[in-house]
Amino acid sequence: MARKADRDQIRKQNRSIILQTLRRKGPMARIDLGHITKLSPATVTAITSDLLDHGLIEGIESDEPKAPQARGRPRSLLRLNPDAACVVSIRISVNTIDLSLTNFAGETFFSKRVPFESAHADAANFPSTLVGAVRRFLNEAGASADKVQEIGVAAQGVVETDAGLVVWSPAFAGRKIPIVGPLEEAFHADCLISNDTNMITEALHWSDPERYSGTFAVVMLDYGVGMGLYLDGRLFAGANGTAAEFGHANHIPGGALCRCGKRGCLEAYLSDYALVRAASRLPETTDPTDIKAGVASLTRLIDRAAANDADALQAFHDAGHVLGYGLARIVALIDPKTIVLTGAAMRAFAFMEEAMRQGLEEALVADLRENFTIDVLPWNEDYIRRGLVAQAMSRMDRNFTGDDIEPRVSLPGAAAEGVGA
Amino acid sequence: MARKADRDQIRKQNRSIILQTLRRKGPMARIDLGHITKLSPATVTAITSDLLDHGLIEGIESDEPKAPQARGRPRSLLRLNPDAACVVSIRISVNTIDLSLTNFAGETFFSKRVPFESAHADAANFPSTLVGAVRRFLNEAGASADKVQEIGVAAQGVVETDAGLVVWSPAFAGRKIPIVGPLEEAFHADCLISNDTNMITEALHWSDPERYSGTFAVVMLDYGVGMGLYLDGRLFAGANGTAAEFGHANHIPGGALCRCGKRGCLEAYLSDYALVRAASRLPETTDPTDIKAGVASLTRLIDRAAANDADALQAFHDAGHVLGYGLARIVALIDPKTIVLTGAAMRAFAFMEEAMRQGLEEALVADLRENFTIDVLPWNEDYIRRGLVAQAMSRMDRNFTGDDIEPRVSLPGAAAEGVGA
Repeated sequence: MARKADRDQIRKQNRSIILQTLRRKGPMARIDLGHITKLSPATVTAITSDLLDHGLIEGIESDEPKAPQARGRPRSLLRLNPDAACVVSIRISVNTIDLSLTNFAGETFFSKRVPFESAHADAANFPSTLVGAVRRFLNEAGASADKVQEIGVAAQGVVETDAGLVVWSPAFAGRKIPIVGPLEEAFHADCLISNDTNMITEALHWSDPERYSGTFAVVMLDYGVGMGLYLDGRLFAGANGTAAEFGHANHIPGGALCRCGKRGCLEAYLSDYALVRAASRLPETTDPTDIKAGVASLTRLIDRAAANDADALQAFHDAGHVLGYGLARIVALIDPKTIVLTGAAMRAFAFMEEAMRQGLEEALVADLRENFTIDVLPWNEDYIRRGLVAQAMSRMDRNFTGDDIEPRVSLPGAAAEGVGA
Repeated sequence: MARKADRDQIRKQNRSIILQTLRRKGPMARIDLGHITKLSPATVTAITSDLLDHGLIEGIESDEPKAPQARGRPRSLLRLNPDAACVVSIRISVNTIDLSLTNFAGETFFSKRVPFESAHADAANFPSTLVGAVRRFLNEAGASADKVQEIGVAAQGVVETDAGLVVWSPAFAGRKIPIVGPLEEAFHADCLISNDTNMITEALHWSDPERYSGTFAVVMLDYGVGMGLYLDGRLFAGANGTAAEFGHANHIPGGALCRCGKRGCLEAYLSDYALVRAASRLPETTDPTDIKAGVASLTRLIDRAAANDADALQAFHDAGHVLGYGLARIVALIDPKTIVLTGAAMRAFAFMEEAMRQGLEEALVADLRENFTIDVLPWNEDYIRRGLVAQAMSRMDRNFTGDDIEPRVSLPGAAAEGVGA
């Protein structure tokens, strides 16, 4: 006979499955819920009763016209109570904090971008900046902080998930910025910080688990260089939560100067400032902080390449070659089924592809080049938010019982957008 | 209530725990077995009865003197039946096949090294060479092929575990050498092929699970360069079983010529031929096949360095610097808790260490250098066999029911050596 701990585990898991199904597929009848989840009618009835009691789901009447031969009561559907709880997603990048609020039904109904000064942000001042920004954001959204069950944070740079801090990031002047502690204390909600590319990885697995499972890698070329690793069916964070620092894996000893202060990191060849530096024919030792870069500069550079500008084309060609070497190392060490390339720089993939394939061929023995595919994913910043929401929702489904749920309050519901859209 | 599949799973697991405990700790009474495994007396009795019925364990009388106050029957102990089944371990390296035979009690009682000609070995001829060598080996050991339950194979080079073949290896002239299929067909036993360094990794986890768990990496510097990755509590093989090819991860684009035909692989700076090439001041494009190398040459080179030979010292210094860069990439991508360095070249670690630390510092941003330790493990070739035996025993404990066990036959039992010694 299963022990009590096992039974609780199974019930929790079935509960999660039902909540996720309603979130993905929308309102449905108990019988359809049973068909889709493959849970028995008795299990569906027991779990949905409990969820109804706790106000996490609610019954509505179907507005579908009844089939002509149908008789009796209108069909009763179950749906998630959108106001049961909410999730705050926070993305921190250079000079900006992107905030969004997602209700229990998975609809993101309020978003805002808040500027801050990366150049002056450090461990002493950033926590209060962040907490203040979230508090104002919730006020503007008309949402009660009590409703916030989970806070998901994605940051660019080296993130230590276990310690809940950003070790080092171009978004901060200081190092070791505490994030999780201050947010949990201020809002009494669970909080998790992840590397931004990990969140893209999570979103890919969430939206297409057939294709993105097992062992795959995501490389994001953008203002920086990010990586997410999904290994043996799980997001991989390393022993301290700092794994997948592709951008700071060395490419050439003593090579181009990186924003981290070291020389020859992949980022120093692949990121926005590296591309601008190369296209401007500046020495590769030029200090990245002296280079006017960012996504806007990257966009202009891509436009120049599209207009056949020789320096811009050469810069993307050379970056493609370096990328090929970087991917070859990933294949040798990780042996992924798929490598996903994404980020703002992917608009320039056509200018990089040939040299990238050349680099892969130069760097990798033929037998290891046969077993993986490269997917180029049109860039959509929303992937990071979707991954944050998917991860936070899944934590919430496991942990939120609704025991302390309060009477319904009204939340603004305009311009709702599905998380899985 | 737990489903039948779950109950079978739990019973199998408890059975494994009891077999492993008897193998690690030696003969013991049922009551001690219960204390150590934390299984209930009823479970211990049920499982040991079943194991006795199937001849996998046997009862013996303790020869310990009874305590003065003890009364009644002599204490009855349970021990593994050493003749219940056996495991063949095979290590394939350049020009040699190392074979050993381990009985059900985990005692390796017969070992042999068989030469073969790597230069002429290919997919067409090697399978019959190998099957013939194993058949002769079993005859010499006086062991029946029927007793062989598991065959574990470790090979140097690029191994595809899922397909059961060696993709490419310095041990073979040809590529894609089938190993698992021919052995399973000839001996009707389960067979698994692994990268040799993976087996060291397995052996470390087996012998010191406190220290070697979670996420750690093993680097073996020897005739070649090997790596094993233990990620999130599991040996990691990648999507196709070819992960952890540290030796063929590129170090410098267009760099030193590697045995694999590519330029700049880490192996082309760190392996036996690379060190001999550097110490002989040969150009780094010298074909590795034209260099007389191997473990003996490596040993001579270490002796020269110990005698203060400048060329030998410089070769190890330079290799140490490259190693530091290679490890830095592992830390950036994998974030291991520990990196274990081992292999025949570790005798020269004193000549490499300073440059290795220098390389790590040059290649890795400071924050990422704080969270891992490097263990240098005195080299012992036996680790590979121990890992093979540990892995094969654990497969056997899960799968071998003893249903088809035959009456006891006598196996030579001389010079038995414990697997966990």
